Amino acid sequence: MIHGGAGAISTPERFAPSLRRILLAGAAMLRGGACALDVVAECVRLLEDDPLFNAGRGSVLNAEGAACCDASIMDGRTLSAGAVAYVRRVRNPVLLARLVMERTPHVFLVGEGAEGFGRQQGVAFEEDTYFVMPERLAQLARAKEREATTLDHTSNDGKLGTVGAVVRDGACNLAAATSTGGLTNQMRGRVGDSPVIGAGVFADNDSCAVSCTGTGEHFLRTSLARTAAYFVEMQGMSAKDAAEAGVAYLVQKVKGSGGLILVDREGGCGVAHSTPGLLWASFHNGEMTVAAGQAGAPEQF
Amino acid sequence: MIHGGAGAISTPERFAPSLRRILLAGAAMLRGGACALDVVAECVRLLEDDPLFNAGRGSVLNAEGAACCDASIMDGRTLSAGAVAYVRRVRNPVLLARLVMERTPHVFLVGEGAEGFGRQQGVAFEEDTYFVMPERLAQLARAKEREATTLDHTSNDGKLGTVGAVVRDGACNLAAATSTGGLTNQMRGRVGDSPVIGAGVFADNDSCAVSCTGTGEHFLRTSLARTAAYFVEMQGMSAKDAAEAGVAYLVQKVKGSGGLILVDREGGCGVAHSTPGLLWASFHNGEMTVAAGQAGAPEQF
Repeated sequence: MIHGGAGAISTPERFAPSLRRILLAGAAMLRGGACALDVVAECVRLLEDDPLFNAGRGSVLNAEGAACCDASIMDGRTLSAGAVAYVRRVRNPVLLARLVMERTPHVFLVGEGAEGFGRQQGVAFEEDTYFVMPERLAQLARAKEREATTLDHTSNDGKLGTVGAVVRDGACNLAAATSTGGLTNQMRGRVGDSPVIGAGVFADNDSCAVSCTGTGEHFLRTSLARTAAYFVEMQGMSAKDAAEAGVAYLVQKVKGSGGLILVDREGGCGVAHSTPGLLWASFHNGEMTVAAGQAGAPEQF
Repeated sequence: MIHGGAGAISTPERFAPSLRRILLAGAAMLRGGACALDVVAECVRLLEDDPLFNAGRGSVLNAEGAACCDASIMDGRTLSAGAVAYVRRVRNPVLLARLVMERTPHVFLVGEGAEGFGRQQGVAFEEDTYFVMPERLAQLARAKEREATTLDHTSNDGKLGTVGAVVRDGACNLAAATSTGGLTNQMRGRVGDSPVIGAGVFADNDSCAVSCTGTGEHFLRTSLARTAAYFVEMQGMSAKDAAEAGVAYLVQKVKGSGGLILVDREGGCGVAHSTPGLLWASFHNGEMTVAAGQAGAPEQF
């Protein structure tokens, strides 16, 4: 499963071709025997490269007009995880997060330290012009006029927060990855849930893989990815029930706004959201679904 | 309850007077009617100001010889939370974390953005010399000689990671706070569990308040503070059982090294650790305990 963010999605058909293309790329890798970790990294890399989504290239701009990215990845086989926050000019933050996981004893690197590690490892950097697109500049100008940090996903210029992927592979291994450009006009240094293991991402072969999207603060305060996984691991819920119970918990505890995708150890898929919509796509038992999840019900298009 | 970190504590008697003094300061505030949130903030502020502990003034030095601090605070009444990571020269990172909670719409600020917010809010900054003490420089030199990031708390020059406090006040409200200077010789930008809500800190009036200490990477991968709170909230465990089950989970899942303190909604206290020792102190039903928890059993001194 992949997602392209939650919000009030006024033109879901704009996003469908990208979601379909990226889902099919991931499905082809799985058919070729790729492991879940490789597939989530590749799907999120493709989502980051697509300017339609708020991550990587399409990241929204912070109060200083810069694209600052956060990303994370987690391997359900070992609970190994890597994350980066507040990195600039890194083309694919998810690949940098993976290098943190695989080539350091650490899990989480932030800011210039993460960028310096990326340079040392030879990851691709881009000029500011790669990230700063006219649509994002216009969004920022509108947000500054309103003096708004776009925390409210129900009135967000159609902006979508976050992308993510959750995969179970042929060997029944799970992995998850999440990436974001944060919030339009956000304060310098603000980090949401996307790079936080247990909040915006979680994967454990004993339960499930989860990727979240929405108002990051709500997911941080409830450790929502871990909470949804808890419902699978400790309460034996199905993927569908755990996704719904996770979002119900989010709403009950902090009136939270957002959603999540989840694949469990049996390969069951779950998706739920408290926002009007969630862009997602799944490949399950040979059947592809691409949906905007408006008004609570999946809407294929 | 307060803690002064986990590790192999060769000279626990060095720390006992500080722990006793800070615990009594918190207990006096509670007797005076202070709320849990104010008490955890004050206890952690005092721990940060004490050069014996690895937080605030006593922070260990990273690979560049700088003290980089992380801190977090959480209010169990509302699940409001604030955190800062990788801040330099801030005298009391826990107070900055509290300002993030109370004066921004965000939860988590990192690096220069967090420092800039602190300057705007008028928090106290100190010169580098305030943090850089001969003992920490010697530790760093030894670590560099070994090319070691001190991830292994069992052989760490007696260095202790993290301080924290968990409190239930007279109105049965819970709060938790955690603060750290990280790891000696850590990579630039490395962040552990201390500023991560659900990993190094958690508080919810429906369950308990938790503060963790140990190898941060292990706590990030298991969302350990949140996990211990589930055991109270969803499985009805006592504080003691939840603390022990949390550390058992940490060890089982990732062979994790560290410990935690926990106070539940009934006022029960729990402490557990997989390291040889954990410095902690509690005030419970009028009785004070100050202990190093060596060899699994509390050892009063």
